[in-house]
Amino acid sequence: MAKYNGVSISVIRRMPRYYRFLRELNNKGIQRVSSKALAALMGLTASQIRQDLNCFGGFGQQGYGYNVQLLYEEIGNILGIPNAFRTILIGVGNLGRAVLQHMDFREVGFELIGVFDNDPQLNGKEIGGFSVMMVDELESFCIKNSPTVAIMCLPDEAVDELCPLLISCGVNGFWNFTHVDIAMKYPGTAVENVHLGDGLMTLCYKLSNDSERKQEY
Amino acid sequence: MAKYNGVSISVIRRMPRYYRFLRELNNKGIQRVSSKALAALMGLTASQIRQDLNCFGGFGQQGYGYNVQLLYEEIGNILGIPNAFRTILIGVGNLGRAVLQHMDFREVGFELIGVFDNDPQLNGKEIGGFSVMMVDELESFCIKNSPTVAIMCLPDEAVDELCPLLISCGVNGFWNFTHVDIAMKYPGTAVENVHLGDGLMTLCYKLSNDSERKQEY
Repeated sequence: MAKYNGVSISVIRRMPRYYRFLRELNNKGIQRVSSKALAALMGLTASQIRQDLNCFGGFGQQGYGYNVQLLYEEIGNILGIPNAFRTILIGVGNLGRAVLQHMDFREVGFELIGVFDNDPQLNGKEIGGFSVMMVDELESFCIKNSPTVAIMCLPDEAVDELCPLLISCGVNGFWNFTHVDIAMKYPGTAVENVHLGDGLMTLCYKLSNDSERKQEY
Repeated sequence: MAKYNGVSISVIRRMPRYYRFLRELNNKGIQRVSSKALAALMGLTASQIRQDLNCFGGFGQQGYGYNVQLLYEEIGNILGIPNAFRTILIGVGNLGRAVLQHMDFREVGFELIGVFDNDPQLNGKEIGGFSVMMVDELESFCIKNSPTVAIMCLPDEAVDELCPLLISCGVNGFWNFTHVDIAMKYPGTAVENVHLGDGLMTLCYKLSNDSERKQEY
């Protein structure tokens, strides 16, 4: 599945944003956009957009611009959205619930298939359209349903209890809200960490350094 | 307050991570760390660490490495952590509650001073140590207490109702969980957007492209 090699992570991290903007244009029924207009909309330069897209082959046509729907679909394919990776969520405290209720998983490449917690009071409770299962059912669920991704909304202390089990059951992707460095501890996994505090500290820097009070991506 | 100019946003975005790792070392009582050891811990190269820190003047001493506590404090100063920006949170649904209960605001440069919602049922309710106030009290609260930062956990539709009011009351920083592009609509503000879906899409890319299944920052 290694379709793209050596594309820098900064470029990769900009792709979801292109995808969001193009979806919005597409939803509005706009069929064509120049790199200049797209650039203005996204607060980038036309040249940066062309450079970014060239990493994946480039999709524009001189003098025509981009076909919105085609580019939207292409970027979706680059990101792997159609894979709809089978995903479980572990931990339905406030954070897990917020994630459950705020995210459209299908739209970003995942299919949520199960929700777990270890609080017996939540056993069987309906949350976000899912009936909460207990963590001790995790192994048999994974064997039967083969999820490949886990969303970790549980306390840090519980991560090392569950990770080896999850990995042995075939989970190799983690959306990680804990502070445990899963990627480093469990090589071979793909991990995205959500460090909410890092964003706040970046905001703190921007506020503390006036010159940074301009938009950047 | 423009202390640092022209530091690239990629470098700035790495600073919070340095800060977290140094805090951890400091909390463990470790007094000195070589750039090599810090690099190994963080999954970076020693040369990248030196380059990053040189953007702010550099802090190492040849043959000695870094004084953990000093570097921790210095990076905290660079980020502006001691400013403890006065902050309000608007919207205490699941997301707002998760943010309220998970974040140590002081640790990342902010002081939370008030929590707002527009649901009358929440009026006066204690959540995360705060008594929820109603959005119609926002203006008088801001005039009295001068917050400069707002955490936006409210529905997209409500953003344009509140932003002009907030800005006229002196709020110029936004930690934005909505999909509204506050930075573009309200120039002069400092904004950090939390697009949780973008992280998931990046994970989707990593899973779809095996070659990316290695750690990167």
